[in-house]
Amino acid sequence: MRADARPGPRNEAGISAILPELAARFGGRFQTGEAVRAHHAHTTTYLPAQMPDGVVFIETREDVVDVVRLAALHRVPLIPFGTGSSLEGQVNAPHGGISLDLSGMNRLLAVNPGDLDCTVEPGITREALNMALRDTGLFFPIDPGANASIGGMTATRASGTNAVRYGTMKDNVLALSVVTAKGEEIRTARRAKKSSAGYDMTRLFVGAEGTLGIITSITLRLQGIPEVIAGGTCHFPDMESACNAVIMTIQLGIPVARIELLDPMQVRACNAYSGLSQREAPTLFLEFHGSRASVDLQSAEFSAIVAECGGSPFEWTVDAAERARLWKARHNAYFAARALAPHLDAVSTDVCVPISRLAECVGETQADIAAHGFLAPIVGHAGDGNFHVLLLFDGKSAADVERAEAFLQRLNDRALAMDGTCTGEHGIGQGKKSFLGAELGGTVDLMRQVKQALDPNGIFNPGKIF
Amino acid sequence: MRADARPGPRNEAGISAILPELAARFGGRFQTGEAVRAHHAHTTTYLPAQMPDGVVFIETREDVVDVVRLAALHRVPLIPFGTGSSLEGQVNAPHGGISLDLSGMNRLLAVNPGDLDCTVEPGITREALNMALRDTGLFFPIDPGANASIGGMTATRASGTNAVRYGTMKDNVLALSVVTAKGEEIRTARRAKKSSAGYDMTRLFVGAEGTLGIITSITLRLQGIPEVIAGGTCHFPDMESACNAVIMTIQLGIPVARIELLDPMQVRACNAYSGLSQREAPTLFLEFHGSRASVDLQSAEFSAIVAECGGSPFEWTVDAAERARLWKARHNAYFAARALAPHLDAVSTDVCVPISRLAECVGETQADIAAHGFLAPIVGHAGDGNFHVLLLFDGKSAADVERAEAFLQRLNDRALAMDGTCTGEHGIGQGKKSFLGAELGGTVDLMRQVKQALDPNGIFNPGKIF
Repeated sequence: MRADARPGPRNEAGISAILPELAARFGGRFQTGEAVRAHHAHTTTYLPAQMPDGVVFIETREDVVDVVRLAALHRVPLIPFGTGSSLEGQVNAPHGGISLDLSGMNRLLAVNPGDLDCTVEPGITREALNMALRDTGLFFPIDPGANASIGGMTATRASGTNAVRYGTMKDNVLALSVVTAKGEEIRTARRAKKSSAGYDMTRLFVGAEGTLGIITSITLRLQGIPEVIAGGTCHFPDMESACNAVIMTIQLGIPVARIELLDPMQVRACNAYSGLSQREAPTLFLEFHGSRASVDLQSAEFSAIVAECGGSPFEWTVDAAERARLWKARHNAYFAARALAPHLDAVSTDVCVPISRLAECVGETQADIAAHGFLAPIVGHAGDGNFHVLLLFDGKSAADVERAEAFLQRLNDRALAMDGTCTGEHGIGQGKKSFLGAELGGTVDLMRQVKQALDPNGIFNPGKIF
Repeated sequence: MRADARPGPRNEAGISAILPELAARFGGRFQTGEAVRAHHAHTTTYLPAQMPDGVVFIETREDVVDVVRLAALHRVPLIPFGTGSSLEGQVNAPHGGISLDLSGMNRLLAVNPGDLDCTVEPGITREALNMALRDTGLFFPIDPGANASIGGMTATRASGTNAVRYGTMKDNVLALSVVTAKGEEIRTARRAKKSSAGYDMTRLFVGAEGTLGIITSITLRLQGIPEVIAGGTCHFPDMESACNAVIMTIQLGIPVARIELLDPMQVRACNAYSGLSQREAPTLFLEFHGSRASVDLQSAEFSAIVAECGGSPFEWTVDAAERARLWKARHNAYFAARALAPHLDAVSTDVCVPISRLAECVGETQADIAAHGFLAPIVGHAGDGNFHVLLLFDGKSAADVERAEAFLQRLNDRALAMDGTCTGEHGIGQGKKSFLGAELGGTVDLMRQVKQALDPNGIFNPGKIF
């Protein structure tokens, strides 16, 4: 792949010096065995793994402070690690260094039901968080598919299927604690729902992919668990009609909780993998949240839109089991797509365009896929103009890798030409570095200036974003 | 007032050098007369005015680039000016320098109805924008009360009455063009609804109060104009019951568009000023947006909450004239409060706390007001935990100024002790500088590092925030 995952210069002296110091400080919680190091360089990505020199199993904020101070002293890279479900090489160690495994720093520190917020440590996963919140009547809505850690989701500005209603991590993080390059823990904001007190440092760390500091706690907005959840599907004669239905839904302010677009190839994959019998046509999967009356109303309003756009009648249900079956199929879209050709490699890529260009961008991409004979289903968070291509290719064939690379370049060029972004939710990591300049020009220089100011010795996750 | 509005050092050589160069470049669009300079230092604030040395009436982005390059060369401060409705001294010129009057750079550059977005120049006001959008069926929701410029609202991270539904400027700016310290125009993001492409530079400039660069265009999210708008009021026996009703409304996910809390003194002021006959009790003003069916449903759900919280029956209407009369009274709350004692001076201050602490914070503040015999009505964006105190005092009496200062200090201490912020929406400017450190500690050092990195010569609005 064309991703820039070149190994960088290694500070061998610093690395040699820090290893015994970490062993002395952390004992069995510092590991340098190859299996452990390999595990921490292995993620859901097509990028080759790059192992760190050691892994610290973090349990407390004091652990983070101590590791950062040692790393600052010896100028050794630190790579934060949650569950390893990032997709663009975010946890690779191209310069070597130390992986901070935060999965054991995973407590729910506080829940404030009256304020609809909670504070967590970075290693807690979203499923564990929602399990812990169950009895409060609240839930944390962001759902990127994988059972990612909240710290990782914060660092990559994750979003997923219900961002259309609840926003992305940018909209749902109230405040962060972060250990800075000086080894000091700061708190970026108070717990008030809004503030205009100075620069928005919270949003600066959300999406920084661990390159500006190590997140040690996250204060999150929560939502009341909906009284009723309704789900359903409908089919359209073509992608454009499906996209028009989405645009009208957003424009009318129907507070749809999820509105996902599957192309016929993805429907075929899901039918085969999850035992569905959906028509192999452009399909929307929907979910509505609210009171029974509100959900009835939303569904009725959406049904009228579907009819106007020439779609099949909208079939929906509030039956939990039936709804769970549908959405499980949607969540398994990645595995369903891979099952189309289990012997092939896969890259799950992500672009996002203004919603008015979604049909055009998806249509041109489908034509590109067909013209080159790829197996590459498409699934999109249509309400946000964000879609994924799961491109299957033979990683052992240089020619196939080259064809795949050229396809990805065309896909990104296409999204940028439509005033879109090279990544709606996966982040830059190593995989998208080469597209960032084309997308943002001189703004990338400003990002570098911020990086230089906050991490002058470059210890935080070097080789990512830039 | 205790606000830090001390005049700073003036670069006399630089100022002397730039004045004739600006005159040569801009002719009659560069003014140095005292009346014009005084106008550009006069805002809705209790802070003493500090005049710039000259005012450039900006019309184009090239104008901004040229002024910034000259200012960078001569190291002369630049103070962006929209309509002058900021409240914490944001447009004062404590170091002298040049005011950039952006009110003439006010075009609506593009509207994309399918994407629910538009791009504007910074000088357009929110009312002018909504007038221009009328025929598209779309509107821009953020309403801080004053007819502020969109550039100013962006720079101060404004919000106001319907932030509870539509969010603040942070949530409604998709992308910015900014002229940086090097005199280069950058664009912070593409027009896609979401992105995870690198650091969130958009959010860094939103709320930076002009201290990091000059905003030259803003891409905004728009909303569909609601089919029906319903408004109404209800009264409660005490502030706590009113706040509980608000908390339950938010927790149930009722998408209320505005939910404003007035204390009895503010109700009395509004009755007198706007000819209302509301009971002088803790009162909520509400607004619902949606289809007729949706608005009916929201109102019914809210009515049930009011009954549970011991409030008066919720009386509401979809009649535009009656609704407008109510909300005009709410919008005139500032003038109504001033009319309680027209001979006194006024400071409109703003704090924000977690919503569960709102009743307590307002209650303690009312007790403080009563104990010290102030006239100081309270009005709050209750759904956000944000409230204003309009403190009336005699600016000619040193003793009264001292009492007012001590009150403001107690108010801010109280909000911070409840994990709140010293400003929910007015910004720091000069007025709140002394509270920022207490609120955010080491995070302020990081802000300074960012400021130093992006504005190394300190030309952008010096003396604000820090």
